[in-house]
Amino acid sequence: MNGRSTPAPAAPAYRRLSVEQRRTQLLAAAVDLFGHRRPEDVSVDDVAAAAGVSRPLVYRYFPGGKQQLYEAAMRNAAEELRACFVEPAEGEMTQRLSNALDRYLAFVDEHDAAYSALLRGGSVAETSRTDAIVDGVRRSAAEQILMHLGAPHPGPRLAMMVRSWIASVEAVSLTWLDEGKRPPAQELRRWLVDHFVALLLVSSTTDQETAEVALAALERESPGSPAGDLARRVTPLAQGIAHLLPPAVS
Amino acid sequence: MNGRSTPAPAAPAYRRLSVEQRRTQLLAAAVDLFGHRRPEDVSVDDVAAAAGVSRPLVYRYFPGGKQQLYEAAMRNAAEELRACFVEPAEGEMTQRLSNALDRYLAFVDEHDAAYSALLRGGSVAETSRTDAIVDGVRRSAAEQILMHLGAPHPGPRLAMMVRSWIASVEAVSLTWLDEGKRPPAQELRRWLVDHFVALLLVSSTTDQETAEVALAALERESPGSPAGDLARRVTPLAQGIAHLLPPAVS
Repeated sequence: MNGRSTPAPAAPAYRRLSVEQRRTQLLAAAVDLFGHRRPEDVSVDDVAAAAGVSRPLVYRYFPGGKQQLYEAAMRNAAEELRACFVEPAEGEMTQRLSNALDRYLAFVDEHDAAYSALLRGGSVAETSRTDAIVDGVRRSAAEQILMHLGAPHPGPRLAMMVRSWIASVEAVSLTWLDEGKRPPAQELRRWLVDHFVALLLVSSTTDQETAEVALAALERESPGSPAGDLARRVTPLAQGIAHLLPPAVS
Repeated sequence: MNGRSTPAPAAPAYRRLSVEQRRTQLLAAAVDLFGHRRPEDVSVDDVAAAAGVSRPLVYRYFPGGKQQLYEAAMRNAAEELRACFVEPAEGEMTQRLSNALDRYLAFVDEHDAAYSALLRGGSVAETSRTDAIVDGVRRSAAEQILMHLGAPHPGPRLAMMVRSWIASVEAVSLTWLDEGKRPPAQELRRWLVDHFVALLLVSSTTDQETAEVALAALERESPGSPAGDLARRVTPLAQGIAHLLPPAVS
């Protein structure tokens, strides 16, 4: 189901729709409104107006009113976010991650208000149920990433590394929205992939499982991959830290 | 003011205390209780019992009851967290960061329930005011780190990098508590410092300001510093990614 394919305002009032169609239409209107405004700036009347129906009709489908509409919209947003991390298990790992991040950042861009509401918490409409929704998305994203790393049942250190990177992605996305979506999404995506590879490498120095997973993944990367691009950019920095290393055997 | 220097249970009931002393005593009891139990498991009666006073006396000092005590305790915890990142501007940057993280993780260890309550949100006692407290701690930690990097007025990319690392530290600390405080705090601290250095280096490849700040800081590091330790551990991994690099000029 993709709510956005049936733009709500175009629907004539009280058009005969099946129960399921009407529910879908109302939800699409709610997703659109909560996606672009803060929860406190959306009312049941707004949803009714956007769908071209009466306020009582909205309550017939969503007896819990605004709170129920909000939670349904957030669950819908969470489903879309979850889908961003689904990527075919082929090609280079850093390219797959880039593809997932491109979809993720496009979602953040398009649904900026919903994304902020979902993650920032503390809003009037926030509940422990919306918190659980966000945790579900995080878990699902972590599972996808670990699957692509070939480590569906990771040890604690590798799991912690992935979770830590996901927390960074969230913080960075919120900062990105605060800063008027600067830098451009492609630059941000490249930086997030760089960050992931860097974290994988430093974690490899102290955790055997991460080292095996990282080297197996990087072995299959080519110079043209995002990892290759990073390797070329990092190499010139080596002279800046050469004094930290033991002298080379001559 | 350090509430914990006057252990509340030892005070005899209705001992004559000044208004300020009594307030401090009650707050110390609340800090202790909220630091070790979930907010929903602490009552005004618990605070009264811990301080050896009557319930009405607690309300005389904290008319807002449990919510006011909780917020005061969270503000107190936030002050302590903030203090963890205050470090003299001398010595190597990665050593300073290690010192700050040692204090931070000791706080998380000692006040595990308060830390979870403060960060996890969604609790019954959470409010937009406690959210603002957490944001204040984040901002303050970022300012300290940027000061030690010699970049008190950072551009957006460097600011984003530091914020992103702080988000990781929070996520990792919560995971650490969930996992029964494994791995040991020193290992976790080393990994968080590694993470910071790695992030600084990869960010240097695409942001001029970060590159200048990073190289200036790393120039002053010695092989015995945490950065030197990381450099030695990372070096052997170079052969695993050699195929990503352009062939060396021979």
